[in-house]
Amino acid sequence: MIKAGIAGFRGYSGSELIEILKRHGGVETFLMEHRADAADRPAPRGHAGPPRIAASAEAAAGLDVVFLATPPEVSMDLAPGFVQAGAKVIDLSGAFRLKPAAEYTRWYKEPHTQEALLAEAVYGLPELSDRSAIASARLISNPGCYPTAASLALAPLVAANVIDRSAGIVCDAKSGVSGAGRKPSLKTSYCEVTGNFSAYSLIDHRHVAEVLMNTGIEERDFTFAAQLIPAHRGILETIYFRGKNVASAAGIIGIYEKRYAGEAFVRLYDPGKMPDLLGVARTNFCDIGVAYDAPTGRGVIVAVIDNLVKGAAGQAVQNMNLAFGLDETRGLL
Amino acid sequence: MIKAGIAGFRGYSGSELIEILKRHGGVETFLMEHRADAADRPAPRGHAGPPRIAASAEAAAGLDVVFLATPPEVSMDLAPGFVQAGAKVIDLSGAFRLKPAAEYTRWYKEPHTQEALLAEAVYGLPELSDRSAIASARLISNPGCYPTAASLALAPLVAANVIDRSAGIVCDAKSGVSGAGRKPSLKTSYCEVTGNFSAYSLIDHRHVAEVLMNTGIEERDFTFAAQLIPAHRGILETIYFRGKNVASAAGIIGIYEKRYAGEAFVRLYDPGKMPDLLGVARTNFCDIGVAYDAPTGRGVIVAVIDNLVKGAAGQAVQNMNLAFGLDETRGLL
Amino acid sequence: MIKAGIAGFRGYSGSELIEILKRHGGVETFLMEHRADAADRPAPRGHAGPPRIAASAEAAAGLDVVFLATPPEVSMDLAPGFVQAGAKVIDLSGAFRLKPAAEYTRWYKEPHTQEALLAEAVYGLPELSDRSAIASARLISNPGCYPTAASLALAPLVAANVIDRSAGIVCDAKSGVSGAGRKPSLKTSYCEVTGNFSAYSLIDHRHVAEVLMNTGIEERDFTFAAQLIPAHRGILETIYFRGKNVASAAGIIGIYEKRYAGEAFVRLYDPGKMPDLLGVARTNFCDIGVAYDAPTGRGVIVAVIDNLVKGAAGQAVQNMNLAFGLDETRGLL
Amino acid sequence: MIKAGIAGFRGYSGSELIEILKRHGGVETFLMEHRADAADRPAPRGHAGPPRIAASAEAAAGLDVVFLATPPEVSMDLAPGFVQAGAKVIDLSGAFRLKPAAEYTRWYKEPHTQEALLAEAVYGLPELSDRSAIASARLISNPGCYPTAASLALAPLVAANVIDRSAGIVCDAKSGVSGAGRKPSLKTSYCEVTGNFSAYSLIDHRHVAEVLMNTGIEERDFTFAAQLIPAHRGILETIYFRGKNVASAAGIIGIYEKRYAGEAFVRLYDPGKMPDLLGVARTNFCDIGVAYDAPTGRGVIVAVIDNLVKGAAGQAVQNMNLAFGLDETRGLL
Repeated sequence: MIKAGIAGFRGYSGSELIEILKRHGGVETFLMEHRADAADRPAPRGHAGPPRIAASAEAAAGLDVVFLATPPEVSMDLAPGFVQAGAKVIDLSGAFRLKPAAEYTRWYKEPHTQEALLAEAVYGLPELSDRSAIASARLISNPGCYPTAASLALAPLVAANVIDRSAGIVCDAKSGVSGAGRKPSLKTSYCEVTGNFSAYSLIDHRHVAEVLMNTGIEERDFTFAAQLIPAHRGILETIYFRGKNVASAAGIIGIYEKRYAGEAFVRLYDPGKMPDLLGVARTNFCDIGVAYDAPTGRGVIVAVIDNLVKGAAGQAVQNMNLAFGLDETRGLL
Repeated sequence: MIKAGIAGFRGYSGSELIEILKRHGGVETFLMEHRADAADRPAPRGHAGPPRIAASAEAAAGLDVVFLATPPEVSMDLAPGFVQAGAKVIDLSGAFRLKPAAEYTRWYKEPHTQEALLAEAVYGLPELSDRSAIASARLISNPGCYPTAASLALAPLVAANVIDRSAGIVCDAKSGVSGAGRKPSLKTSYCEVTGNFSAYSLIDHRHVAEVLMNTGIEERDFTFAAQLIPAHRGILETIYFRGKNVASAAGIIGIYEKRYAGEAFVRLYDPGKMPDLLGVARTNFCDIGVAYDAPTGRGVIVAVIDNLVKGAAGQAVQNMNLAFGLDETRGLL
Repeated sequence: MIKAGIAGFRGYSGSELIEILKRHGGVETFLMEHRADAADRPAPRGHAGPPRIAASAEAAAGLDVVFLATPPEVSMDLAPGFVQAGAKVIDLSGAFRLKPAAEYTRWYKEPHTQEALLAEAVYGLPELSDRSAIASARLISNPGCYPTAASLALAPLVAANVIDRSAGIVCDAKSGVSGAGRKPSLKTSYCEVTGNFSAYSLIDHRHVAEVLMNTGIEERDFTFAAQLIPAHRGILETIYFRGKNVASAAGIIGIYEKRYAGEAFVRLYDPGKMPDLLGVARTNFCDIGVAYDAPTGRGVIVAVIDNLVKGAAGQAVQNMNLAFGLDETRGLL
Repeated sequence: MIKAGIAGFRGYSGSELIEILKRHGGVETFLMEHRADAADRPAPRGHAGPPRIAASAEAAAGLDVVFLATPPEVSMDLAPGFVQAGAKVIDLSGAFRLKPAAEYTRWYKEPHTQEALLAEAVYGLPELSDRSAIASARLISNPGCYPTAASLALAPLVAANVIDRSAGIVCDAKSGVSGAGRKPSLKTSYCEVTGNFSAYSLIDHRHVAEVLMNTGIEERDFTFAAQLIPAHRGILETIYFRGKNVASAAGIIGIYEKRYAGEAFVRLYDPGKMPDLLGVARTNFCDIGVAYDAPTGRGVIVAVIDNLVKGAAGQAVQNMNLAFGLDETRGLL
């Protein structure tokens, strides 16, 4: 049994990790307390969940892996001690995704305090990354939710040179409210969200940098908007491009099929058919559909994931499976 | 008092008309029955709403105006008799928006049965149309919900030549479920919509034609996607373009301010601030916000309306006010 | 024109007051700032709403009436100065509903700081109160949302002696989330409410005292539960009783019809038909339906209101109309 | 591997069965087509789900068990042939819950066409039924959703004689919309449900009979109301009673603890703490909380289940586990 700790277990990604690891079968879970003031959900008698331990390096020394489902600044605080203690660390925050530190600072508007650790961190989007690097990393940086869907949708098409990048690529991204975290705020209050739909970050969202990094697209050619769906979970991205060197939606789907042959977690729809949030809810799948008007080159991709699973906890467990030599899909199908 | 009939009064646009006319103060409303089988909402004793009359030409002869909140094929059936009977007709369907008949047929995939009436119909989007033509029309064709927001957002910028159209314009459109009508279907069932978000029409939605007509944009340069928000009402459109001849979001907002000076129903946000659905819910406003990255020309517009008000019933009453020489905003502020 | 101030205008009841007074036609509204730190909703340029003034006695001196849409402790702070300044005060909080101070303290678990003002305050539930007392009061205490529905449903039946009180009366009450106010909390976060339904106060909710006061029911005979509906607004109460001296649902409805003859805001359903939240949304109506099994005396009443209208802002305007000699329904139909 | 067929697999209970059996590990699932016209959800290429077979006796002959997630009249049609073919049948409809046929007819308002099979059917609510009878039955009748929660909450207290039944017992029941099935209707349309809450069956709901059967309560002492929560799934029942022979909520909880000792699927909350829908969503648990005012005997129980799991598919798999000698919790924790 792998001994796994979760810091930030009360948040939505942390809670999702608890659920996934319960089904995994090969993991013994420990909840690492680092904020005494955070409110638990009420629980029935005798069902308080996995045992609780301190979020300390001493406690981490007894663990094989620690998931950090914490904000970037907390991840930067906790990661060094845990790595030092010998636990593999899988960080779900943005703290270790962008290199070098100056790039992090540009997008996150704050200094990076762990440059050495940042340098060695391995970005873990298995379908696009080097799996052997993930397997041997001491610190795995789990991708952001928006970039996971956008990168899986765009990287193969950029590589196949079927997008006219000079015409610009648009990613209109929508996320359920859990993407904003569990901390109460007016923005995520029920009465402000229900019956509403709003755009909250246009053009310079911090996740843009990850998409550029994963796809090779240049910043000037990529426009991104982040918007809030009145729903608990799920991300749907509608991606617009001008196509070239391709004759049909089927041709584009063929590129995906070739690129993702053997991948368990990418699923494709028939030309013109589109996935929706319910189709991936509580799964680790990324579903992709394509519409294409060949005469004009107008192309639209719809890519969906569950932001808490493939966009966070599920992908983290996928990375854990790789790191411990297990079947990559364990606990995730 | 203006005597107004509503055909299709049980649908969501029809119900909204009843509510708006109740507040109007200058209208006596009659509900015109044309489907005996449609279900009313349960009503308290003694509060069944306005009087009911037949949806017949005879009945229309006693009215000053009839609103058709019916599907296109029903509007084509009813409009000629009502016009003949001397009532002004304001049609909320798509039956009389596109000319000539061949254009209608291309987008609606069915023949047009009233070519003569189509020829004389006046398209009534007051902020962009000729108000005197609306005022004197026998048949006013009320705009579609999606085209209202997209046209108000795009027409001034196209006219001011600040959009590089050759780079393509994207309109990512999202609508609440009432846009799909009141007829039960699996697609609009509660359990299929709640927690979901889905794209249902990509590139060739029938509303595209109206946007092109209102803005002068060419079809090959315009990509449109229609998507379903898990909410009752409201449309938010995120519009992406490559700018030229303009230096900032403030510059773009200045173009709108000039174009819409004196317009009661278009409201603008400060640069970088964005409107949301709740801000226009149950109002006749179209709210517009702009973000713009001058060095790269990446521009984003967010335009929102209530699909049942400015996108349907409210705009119809605005047209009625024009047609009867009343203050254009009566009943709508 | 009546000059009306609103303290607590950013809260949900305060916002509703702004909307209702806008439609009223006889009121000039002023927003009274008493918390500089509270967040406004984003607003379009040039549409910031009514003018803002300080929440001071000096400012109140220039007003005819002040609505306090504030928590009880703030209402106790503000009311004396405003009354002194000569403005009528209509308090929407629970501060002045229960007399004497000891009764307030028992249910609100805190001391009452304005005993003299409490003594003179007039409880304003027009359908059950003495309208002339409301009309002449310096301080009107607006009823709680739950007690409004429960009292309107129960008072006539208790008075008609058709309830066997010894068998107990149950009021299963459900409210939309706006009843909990606008202040962010985990309990009212979107992700904790959507897809959820929860009971949050059983037996000893502070609103119980008002129902007992309005109906004459004794505490031991009344069981109350407050529950949270995943919806923005609305209260539905399902009330269970053992009937006596009555033969049918129609008979019970007859009692209501007699008691509420001439009342504009109470509506009744046919026997066995039940009102729902949508039927009263954004209205000042209280809708009531009755089911009754005569052989066993099992009776069920469903009473619904919009908690922000008849349960708060609408009823407050109804009281204002009474206090200024206007048509009681002005701005409310 | 157990070979299991599902008839009615497109409905919400049927879909839930597919999901649960996928996680079970000991079952090979087949989807039995009996309605060619029903719409599937769109599916990604190569992920159409389990193999499909006819809903015929011949097909059933190759199966160990068939789940009927069908309406009562379809279950009556299909069950005899499947039982004859040698498959165990677990019926999720109401067709075989009430005996004799006259009792069925009284509550379901239609004749029973399979009286012999009805006579031998075993009612399968494991925590309250005879498990050995379930294990050996040819036809297991899966309980209704509302009665599962109400019976688990009430049976132990009735047996312990701590309820004064003569004062009446009230069960105020609320269900998510999936309880109404997947067939489109106005009542379950998104725009009619969101923002709404409604009571749809008062006093004589057909599920009442099952509660009486399971608890020994008499009809005249039990008042039941069924109401619709604007949520996909979940049932919360608030049960009111007059207590006797018991001194506190803790005492009542003690009765449950004794009765349900060793039961995996009943969980209890501390006195005064209440479960909510999210706590049981997608689980087979029934969670119970109790509030009690000893001086007056006013008692309130809150019991929650997921209507699609413990109220349908989960309980069906629990029964299947019993019928095939497996660990009762397999696939369900």
